[in-house]
Amino acid sequence: MKLVRYGEPGEEKPGLIDGDGTLRDLSAYVPDITGATLGDGALDALRALDTSALPTVAGTPRMGPCVGNIGKFLCIGLNYSDHAEEQGLAIPEHPILFFKANSAITGANDDIVMPRGSRRTDWEVELGVVIGKEGKYISEDTALEHVAGYCIVNDVSEREFQQKLSGQWTKGKSCDTYGPTGPWLVTRDEVGDPQSLAMSLDVNGTRMQTGSTATMIFTVAQIIAHLSELFTLYPGDVITTGTPPGVGDGMRPQQYLKVGDVVELEIEGLGKQRQVVRQDA
Amino acid sequence: MKLVRYGEPGEEKPGLIDGDGTLRDLSAYVPDITGATLGDGALDALRALDTSALPTVAGTPRMGPCVGNIGKFLCIGLNYSDHAEEQGLAIPEHPILFFKANSAITGANDDIVMPRGSRRTDWEVELGVVIGKEGKYISEDTALEHVAGYCIVNDVSEREFQQKLSGQWTKGKSCDTYGPTGPWLVTRDEVGDPQSLAMSLDVNGTRMQTGSTATMIFTVAQIIAHLSELFTLYPGDVITTGTPPGVGDGMRPQQYLKVGDVVELEIEGLGKQRQVVRQDA
Repeated sequence: MKLVRYGEPGEEKPGLIDGDGTLRDLSAYVPDITGATLGDGALDALRALDTSALPTVAGTPRMGPCVGNIGKFLCIGLNYSDHAEEQGLAIPEHPILFFKANSAITGANDDIVMPRGSRRTDWEVELGVVIGKEGKYISEDTALEHVAGYCIVNDVSEREFQQKLSGQWTKGKSCDTYGPTGPWLVTRDEVGDPQSLAMSLDVNGTRMQTGSTATMIFTVAQIIAHLSELFTLYPGDVITTGTPPGVGDGMRPQQYLKVGDVVELEIEGLGKQRQVVRQDA
Repeated sequence: MKLVRYGEPGEEKPGLIDGDGTLRDLSAYVPDITGATLGDGALDALRALDTSALPTVAGTPRMGPCVGNIGKFLCIGLNYSDHAEEQGLAIPEHPILFFKANSAITGANDDIVMPRGSRRTDWEVELGVVIGKEGKYISEDTALEHVAGYCIVNDVSEREFQQKLSGQWTKGKSCDTYGPTGPWLVTRDEVGDPQSLAMSLDVNGTRMQTGSTATMIFTVAQIIAHLSELFTLYPGDVITTGTPPGVGDGMRPQQYLKVGDVVELEIEGLGKQRQVVRQDA
């Protein structure tokens, strides 16, 4: 299933994209797409519905973040060996963890609004993992059972805030609108192997990132197992798993987003994102 | 006012501690103590109540985290010059920011439960700042108007997770139960100057930390102004503002918490916390 949340910010309704690509409303069956509706049982109940009988949604409403009320927004850094290389950083021994502020989360096609004074905003196409089942001390071989599904995340990053404001990356990762998430939450049964998904990112139509989740240093299962040694993972937590090569900060000369730029992301089977860049006056 | 949330985890009710130290129920007036009830207007409405007419609460219920549904749990590192010195780290140029997972938040007197394999769990008494009014690009001179009130936070820290698991402090800060918050949210009118509060922490009755918020490197107002350049601060966000000297990791020999240890914290006017240490089997 491809689950979505559609409508204006703060007023999103649950829906799904059917086999023909039509948006259908799920409001009669679930109040929202959140941790509470992402367990295997709850997803099975949605799967059992006659999709063709669900009301279609007219027009092309905004796609909100594909998960509401996200608990932890966990981010793994330097998880592609060639990206670590372009950033001039050593391959980590363990998954590097930082958080994005929940208040950074936006819809897949919402504008990226750079804060005042920002001069080095960068892009990062990433595979987002949505947790569906609570767990702690999860073994690697059962880890994927804790996944409700997958989505695209653009881990938008202000490199000056990240690197020059006295330590800890989170400052450059947490700006408002720096976490486009969606458009779809694609359930794990439909995704299959999360370690063989092609991914790409274009800026103004020029391909910047090309990669595959096959080249992750730590797999989704390894990341879940590692994080669950530290704390409980809850339904509705989202883990974004690092980015392949091609970020602007790694280019020579370096390249950053400018007002009016258009950023387009795609991950195989998970849909597309498109953001226009603005800046706070 | 001293606002509290009392009752079992997940079932906390709103209350206040009256002038005689009696716990009184606020359920008839607010559904919970969260960002939605922390604006100046909402607090004024509670202040206008006849406290002596509110129902008293029998017994000594558990004190939950004094704010429910916390948005961002923002933490400032190395914010006391003498603490930076004991950790052997340079005075930062800007406030250092990291996040604690929201899932780490517990009540003031709940047990600290060390995760499996944890050997270096440490204590940090800190002044917590609860945001009551949304803002971005907040000036330093109006910053305190965005504060609903203050509370104690124990920024419990696993030093091995923090320092040895490949970068970013958040791993050592986010374990379940590593964020005791409360017992009271004391409104800012009652606290007065947040930069002159005595603070202390004892382990098994031995004084470990003695300090005052007077020796912060970055004041509460400076921290709010800085963070609001990065992202919007929302009602219900909590900022914990760093710890004075006396953490176990800075001692020679280093000292960490053991099963059965009792940790007691106090900040002038904000009440006391008391935690017993356990460990996951």
